[in-house]
Amino acid sequence: MVHRRVLQAMAEPLVGHLDPYFLELLDSVQDRLRWLFCTTNRLTMPISATGSAGMEACFANVISDGDEVVIGVNGVFGTRMCDVASRLGARVQRAEAPWGRIVEPDDLRAAISACSKPKLVALVHAETSTGAWQPLEESARLAREAGALFLVDAVTSLAGCPLEVDAWGIDLCYSGTQKCISCPPGLSPLTVSERALEIVRSREQPPRSWYLDLGLLGAYFDERRVYHHTAPVSMIYALSEALEIIEEEGLEARFARHRRNHEALAAGLSALGLKLAAQEGHRLWMLNSVTVPEGIDDAALRRALLNNHGIEIGAGLGPLAGKVVRIGLMGESSRPANVRRLLSALGDELAKADLGCSAADALQECERVYGDSGGI
Amino acid sequence: MVHRRVLQAMAEPLVGHLDPYFLELLDSVQDRLRWLFCTTNRLTMPISATGSAGMEACFANVISDGDEVVIGVNGVFGTRMCDVASRLGARVQRAEAPWGRIVEPDDLRAAISACSKPKLVALVHAETSTGAWQPLEESARLAREAGALFLVDAVTSLAGCPLEVDAWGIDLCYSGTQKCISCPPGLSPLTVSERALEIVRSREQPPRSWYLDLGLLGAYFDERRVYHHTAPVSMIYALSEALEIIEEEGLEARFARHRRNHEALAAGLSALGLKLAAQEGHRLWMLNSVTVPEGIDDAALRRALLNNHGIEIGAGLGPLAGKVVRIGLMGESSRPANVRRLLSALGDELAKADLGCSAADALQECERVYGDSGGI
Repeated sequence: MVHRRVLQAMAEPLVGHLDPYFLELLDSVQDRLRWLFCTTNRLTMPISATGSAGMEACFANVISDGDEVVIGVNGVFGTRMCDVASRLGARVQRAEAPWGRIVEPDDLRAAISACSKPKLVALVHAETSTGAWQPLEESARLAREAGALFLVDAVTSLAGCPLEVDAWGIDLCYSGTQKCISCPPGLSPLTVSERALEIVRSREQPPRSWYLDLGLLGAYFDERRVYHHTAPVSMIYALSEALEIIEEEGLEARFARHRRNHEALAAGLSALGLKLAAQEGHRLWMLNSVTVPEGIDDAALRRALLNNHGIEIGAGLGPLAGKVVRIGLMGESSRPANVRRLLSALGDELAKADLGCSAADALQECERVYGDSGGI
Repeated sequence: MVHRRVLQAMAEPLVGHLDPYFLELLDSVQDRLRWLFCTTNRLTMPISATGSAGMEACFANVISDGDEVVIGVNGVFGTRMCDVASRLGARVQRAEAPWGRIVEPDDLRAAISACSKPKLVALVHAETSTGAWQPLEESARLAREAGALFLVDAVTSLAGCPLEVDAWGIDLCYSGTQKCISCPPGLSPLTVSERALEIVRSREQPPRSWYLDLGLLGAYFDERRVYHHTAPVSMIYALSEALEIIEEEGLEARFARHRRNHEALAAGLSALGLKLAAQEGHRLWMLNSVTVPEGIDDAALRRALLNNHGIEIGAGLGPLAGKVVRIGLMGESSRPANVRRLLSALGDELAKADLGCSAADALQECERVYGDSGGI
């Protein structure tokens, strides 16, 4: 869900992408993104494409043929990173974990040790495909000790839970607008440390991608404002408004809201006899993967929720296909009304399968959490 | 300028990028793009990034390290093609022409002959940086005879003047939404022939770019609808509406409108003593580059038009910087009211410089064209 102010911003008349008014707006968007990423990185900007292009931008600017990279793989997006990096000529060392679990520091350390000189260590903060919440601080230290850059996928985490780019020592971090920022999909906020930029500047060959070349992008996104490509003006309007809404709420309050709604959902799901699938202690607030009970067809359940209740939840992916469903509570969608609506609908649909659970029980448990936290 | 219906479409509530409603909309957008490109190519779709990413997608999927490509260079975008192709490992043979002139078939033939086995011949249909209108049919034949694919940049031409992908033998063609389609910037319509797809399928290594991989994109944009990246839903709404508006007007009527407004502008400019800078007989309807008269500072003129009249025109680029200004009449902006407003403003600003020309004369010449064409 997107706030109506963001939708209205999309409908504003267009100005040129080099118009003084637009450049001023872009300045303020970049400042707000620095605030959101908790960074002072000069090169902080929205890439003119979706989150996966942000991923590609990070690898394409840092990697040259033959470079070693260490990638944590415990879901779709770590797997995608390996594909992106390999195509760019990297030799990939995987630090693996079962889908739903986090990548353990010991496994990351072992993968780093298997390299002679890793250029980059990469992890996914919030694995949208499983609901696992990857801790980052120790991994950042391991990367730094190995002389490697530290890259983080924050597509689903940014603006929904704490993420501190500078304090944690993250060199490259990208996100997407359509998750906890609650803006339509189409842009990828990206921030790059001075340390990473030195690597980019010292390349012998330019990056394979012209569109995602950080040197060229930097010349548009800093005070030079040199034309590179035409910025997607309306999407920038929307992002600006979405960031203003986040600022009005405040980061602490926003994180607390995501946490409380997750806890209320978890309590209700538990009352329905359902289990969260991600590793205990490392469950995301904004993406809840739920084990599908025996005897329930996940596709039929998702279809019933969409057709009978107007609620879209996600399918399990990869090895979790058919085994879990994924419930997003991101940004504007992380609201008690949505938690109640989902629990009520899910309870009703499961009751049809005679699983001995009721929507009423689920709602009661959910309200207990809201009551404990001092109401909504 | 963008039609208000397109702006309103951007403000529509979001659905998921795999939602049945959205996929149906995407089907119709793809059908309409086929109609606009005059092609039956199955792989016809909007790339989720701006026009330059469309350019990169074409080269990245076809080129492997060491491939020879022939590129026509007579402005910014041909030059950009050389950069994009070189980064991807191509050996580039340039067919050059002075900025403002077209690339001559003889020069293209010579560049093709200088290759042992060219993989690709690439031209810019409408050079936005100069206003030159490149003929394509003979070049397409030359490419075909050399066993090369034929690639065309149609960023500024599509929906503003005739472009026949199938009839002319174009294998790869990309555009942008923000020119004659009159949709906000952010998407790159792209079409790929079966002949080009065979080359893509026979690659030994996957394309360097995961985001722009036509094999992966094809699996989302055909009936399989396999998740690749999150489509920019609101931008697709906007494109759908913009294409519907084009369909309502009809292509012939739309082209005639672009032509008439260009002719009216040219007549008015001539009355002001101004000269069009692009090669005679090869001047674009939607982008008019105008030689800046002696004694006039082009930046001051552009600033005066923006600040005193609310009209944005473009600067000259590259070797034409300071020597020309560029007047766009694209899509919704190609209207008699805009032509009159521009001529009136330009006449007033030039009168301040005592060049002995008047806005009244310019408007009279412009009206003569509109009168001859049977009114507006």
